[in-house]
Amino acid sequence: MTSLPMRVRDEEGNFHLEDTNQNERSLWLLNPPNPPPLGKKLISSLKNNKFFLSSKNKTCHQHVASFLRSLFPILSLFGNYDAFKFKDDLLAGLTLASLSIPQSIGYAILAKLDPQYGLYTSVVPPLIYAVMGSSREIAIGPVAVVSLLLSSLVQKVVDPNVNHDGYRNVVFTVTLFAGIFQVAFGVFRLGFLVDFLSHAALVGFMAGAAIMIGLQQLKGLLGISHFTNKTDVVSVLESVYKSLHQQITSGEWYPLNFVIGSSFLIFLLSARFIGKRNKKLFWLPAIAPLASVILSTFIVYISKADKNGVNIVKHVKPGLNPNSVHQLQLSGEHVGQAAKIGLISAVIALTEAMAVGRSFASIKGYHLDGNKEMLAMGCMNIAGSFSSCYVATGSFSRTAVNFSAGCKTSVSNIVMAITVILCLELFTRLLYYTPMAILASIILSALPGLIDIREACYIWKVDKFDFLACIGAFFGVLFQSVEVGLLVAVSISFAKIVIQSIRPGIEILGRIPRTEAFCNVSQYPMATSTPGILVIRISSGSLCFANANAVRERILKWVTQEDDELKERSTNFQEETTRGSVQAVILDMTNMMNVDTSGILALEELHKRLISRGVQFAMVNPRWLVIHKLKLAHFVDKMGKEWIFLTVAEAVDACMSYKLPI
Amino acid sequence: MTSLPMRVRDEEGNFHLEDTNQNERSLWLLNPPNPPPLGKKLISSLKNNKFFLSSKNKTCHQHVASFLRSLFPILSLFGNYDAFKFKDDLLAGLTLASLSIPQSIGYAILAKLDPQYGLYTSVVPPLIYAVMGSSREIAIGPVAVVSLLLSSLVQKVVDPNVNHDGYRNVVFTVTLFAGIFQVAFGVFRLGFLVDFLSHAALVGFMAGAAIMIGLQQLKGLLGISHFTNKTDVVSVLESVYKSLHQQITSGEWYPLNFVIGSSFLIFLLSARFIGKRNKKLFWLPAIAPLASVILSTFIVYISKADKNGVNIVKHVKPGLNPNSVHQLQLSGEHVGQAAKIGLISAVIALTEAMAVGRSFASIKGYHLDGNKEMLAMGCMNIAGSFSSCYVATGSFSRTAVNFSAGCKTSVSNIVMAITVILCLELFTRLLYYTPMAILASIILSALPGLIDIREACYIWKVDKFDFLACIGAFFGVLFQSVEVGLLVAVSISFAKIVIQSIRPGIEILGRIPRTEAFCNVSQYPMATSTPGILVIRISSGSLCFANANAVRERILKWVTQEDDELKERSTNFQEETTRGSVQAVILDMTNMMNVDTSGILALEELHKRLISRGVQFAMVNPRWLVIHKLKLAHFVDKMGKEWIFLTVAEAVDACMSYKLPI
Repeated sequence: MTSLPMRVRDEEGNFHLEDTNQNERSLWLLNPPNPPPLGKKLISSLKNNKFFLSSKNKTCHQHVASFLRSLFPILSLFGNYDAFKFKDDLLAGLTLASLSIPQSIGYAILAKLDPQYGLYTSVVPPLIYAVMGSSREIAIGPVAVVSLLLSSLVQKVVDPNVNHDGYRNVVFTVTLFAGIFQVAFGVFRLGFLVDFLSHAALVGFMAGAAIMIGLQQLKGLLGISHFTNKTDVVSVLESVYKSLHQQITSGEWYPLNFVIGSSFLIFLLSARFIGKRNKKLFWLPAIAPLASVILSTFIVYISKADKNGVNIVKHVKPGLNPNSVHQLQLSGEHVGQAAKIGLISAVIALTEAMAVGRSFASIKGYHLDGNKEMLAMGCMNIAGSFSSCYVATGSFSRTAVNFSAGCKTSVSNIVMAITVILCLELFTRLLYYTPMAILASIILSALPGLIDIREACYIWKVDKFDFLACIGAFFGVLFQSVEVGLLVAVSISFAKIVIQSIRPGIEILGRIPRTEAFCNVSQYPMATSTPGILVIRISSGSLCFANANAVRERILKWVTQEDDELKERSTNFQEETTRGSVQAVILDMTNMMNVDTSGILALEELHKRLISRGVQFAMVNPRWLVIHKLKLAHFVDKMGKEWIFLTVAEAVDACMSYKLPI
Repeated sequence: MTSLPMRVRDEEGNFHLEDTNQNERSLWLLNPPNPPPLGKKLISSLKNNKFFLSSKNKTCHQHVASFLRSLFPILSLFGNYDAFKFKDDLLAGLTLASLSIPQSIGYAILAKLDPQYGLYTSVVPPLIYAVMGSSREIAIGPVAVVSLLLSSLVQKVVDPNVNHDGYRNVVFTVTLFAGIFQVAFGVFRLGFLVDFLSHAALVGFMAGAAIMIGLQQLKGLLGISHFTNKTDVVSVLESVYKSLHQQITSGEWYPLNFVIGSSFLIFLLSARFIGKRNKKLFWLPAIAPLASVILSTFIVYISKADKNGVNIVKHVKPGLNPNSVHQLQLSGEHVGQAAKIGLISAVIALTEAMAVGRSFASIKGYHLDGNKEMLAMGCMNIAGSFSSCYVATGSFSRTAVNFSAGCKTSVSNIVMAITVILCLELFTRLLYYTPMAILASIILSALPGLIDIREACYIWKVDKFDFLACIGAFFGVLFQSVEVGLLVAVSISFAKIVIQSIRPGIEILGRIPRTEAFCNVSQYPMATSTPGILVIRISSGSLCFANANAVRERILKWVTQEDDELKERSTNFQEETTRGSVQAVILDMTNMMNVDTSGILALEELHKRLISRGVQFAMVNPRWLVIHKLKLAHFVDKMGKEWIFLTVAEAVDACMSYKLPI
């Protein structure tokens, strides 16, 4: 205890002045304005909700104009748009269409729908999004993961092989619900729900889904006639093996499917590889799918290979999107399940679209309002459900192509949609001889972009728990089903939050040399602790029922341990110890966001037990809610107002000067 | 921007010196020792687990002695125990027994077991606890809430009215599982699991359970022959009304039951009231139940009231606890359910015992090791399940009597157990004529202690969310069932933790006058902010997937809003604004416990967007794990080491001096 008196004597000169200041600060600390009550908070968050109307002083006319501009961002194009921009958008749109048409047909087959529904989905949603959405690069249409999700979930409700029309009607109903949920997310500012699928979980989920989508393509690639409805890897491989074995033994297997599919797959992957290496050749992977379709269709038509067992698309219904309002099933047995699937699809679709939209907006340096995007996505899916489309969203691969092709505004989506319309009106008959294996290889060639091993390694390196969510989602999707994978990922993510929030750790703080800052002594080994004074910080965000008792016991154990060790040392070695026993415990509450009644009870108990041991207890910098609750619970009166400080340094000084007389 | 240059000039004198120090501190911040890896943490927590063996340098003999003393705290009595202490314990034990005997019989009936099983449960568990437990006051035996819990859960497995022996065997099996779980909690230091039932939830649960127990007593008090097996308030009241109506109309209702029961209830409540008012008369409520039993039994015996429809206990099997090892059902259909019920009972029993034990230990000023207590409770219940006892724990009401009667050590439990043994051996026949209504009124008279309206009001005042858990547990127990009540309470409590942890709030900080401390400007209206510099703190404990995007958007919105306002003001009023637009954002990370990969992504995005707007971004005092992860993710390199500071004040100074040249 040699350093104690000296230190205080040093500061004694200006101690009284300091003291006055400190008293004033204590008053500030103890008498803050009341925190806004719960009701008021809710009201203010609801007020924020009217995001269309800015509350600035504008005339009615200005209000309407700003409302319309906010709802239809395309309006703000007028005046800025010129021929040069249109030329860029036209080129980008055409490139996009050449990729969209084959992909849409492939994804429709993946969703177990007829090919034309994929094309329909590339017409109406992109047009709606182009006028309502604020992203300039995003390419709208059917995507692989949502198609897989829909087919794997809806086929549990209605079997597409048994009741094809019923299945399709449920898909439209799901699309309607997905749109409604997306609009609701946007209007009620529930965009944060999309964030519940963490980045890590998304990486795992996408990789798992990609593998599953790839496995589904084995049907087309190998020309298998019987395929399982299950989506887990074991069932699919088993079914592929059995069917293949049976078809080969019965002589019904035609290797030509595989030959065509795999040779074009090699071509597509090479194009992709070249396009990646040489950014100027970005158009090569973009038009390669359409080129493959045309080429292979031509080959099959010429060689009459369909007579030799090559599976072909056959009839694609010509004409524009038919009306599907009367096919929506808003009553009946499947409504509840359709709504559930709609919710899952809405979240997955939004997650993909937001990820895509945000990353490209960030490259171009503009801001994407999540809630408005959701509104636009919702409207386009509702409109889609009325016009024979299934759930559309922003596609990773096509958006990248759109961006590389130099699109300037969402007009490129309009160009793409018009091209698809032309295709639907004029060229569907040409698709008759397109081999299924080509569609499978087009989908397969797009999958590597969904598997991001580098990112998984990065996640492993940075956060092991995040990696657990990632790998959980991956294996959940792979070995169980899409929903299980999502559930596992979300559960692990939330379990992590709970565990971190209630971890009853405590940290010992010490003074960083030449500052007034007190930090964790393990993190800063150079930090010095004051003899006899234990400065403690709780390493969790709230002192609540789940950790309060453990924290209290740890602090008490620390105090008693230090005392016992000292006793033992002094009896064993019969010497004066240089460090005093613990005379004061200072609890730094800076990082404690909240406290509940169990936490306050634990603090009361801690205070009582420490005082009964002759140890002073001080609190530092309790936050707004915490000091408010402590005052309500009369704990401030119990422990004495003079033992609550604004900074740790003040508390240490006060504890030292208090202990001096003894 | 008038104050900027002046301020810097003020400090310019010692700026270079400051700078050197600051560089050194930045190095400390950026190069901390590596945090212990996850594996090491687990190992060290497992090492802590060997709580019997203290690692001090002792001989083998000392080790064994300390191990034994730790396992059997009664051993440390030898040498300290004398005749005076024994006199106190004897008196307390006898008082306790006079309360225990009638209560035990009543609780056994509540648990739908024969009366003697309650008495058995007051023999073996108290004896085991007396040698193994470390609480000196706690009174062990059957308690109301656990009895209710057992009967309501086990009767769903086996109906006691159909298969009386089977029901009893399941109860013993549940007791064994409860004991095993309690031992496991103790050995693996899982004591924190008991804390998952928060204080608020416990208050609500206890009140709900008390009302349900009270309703169950209507059977005995009113002399109803048919009673429902359901436990929710609606079913019970309906059943009471129907049975009563039917019995009255058929002339089978005997009001004498009610007359006896209610008159003795008034007597018991008066005794309780007097005992509470006058602490010296504590023995009055303690012996009143036994006195009532003796008196009422005598009256019934004399008046032959049982012939007039008064329900009596009838045969109570004499003799000590029979062996019940062979009645345990460790295989068969009910094992899984027995284990589940055992887990729930173990948690509820421990929660009650720990609450009782801790509060009395705190009054007497000694420490109760939760894990050792769990071990003792577990052993006593395992032993109990072998000797025809059901789940025993520490009782609120009897512990208070034991304490008031002046018990000194757990020897009072031994005295009580011996008294119950004598009763079982000699006096069971005397219980033949005891009216059931008396047992009901004894239980009813103990219930008010379980309903704590004052505490509920306090919870409402301090923490509305806690109150929600409290009221949720209360109504869940009352209108559904015990498990639903527990589930509701635990779910609400955890939902609260999650919501608080991921709330994407941000706080603007300002400098507290005459200090270096930066605090929330809403909490401290006198705090001053520096023009052009936005100091922000995130008001949640971790920046994770669920809040990272929202936090990023809020910060960006704040920055753009302030800019837009300034622009508007300067165009509207054509004047120089005194406050500069935001030139730097300082993020105080003191309270951020953790960050995940989504959080790091959001920080990167925020940094990029701020820099692209020409706004400098600085971080202050990231914690150990956070700086470690940021370094692993190369974010520190991206944002520049020179923009990470130890204190907000340093960051503000650096931002000001950086902006000066412009």
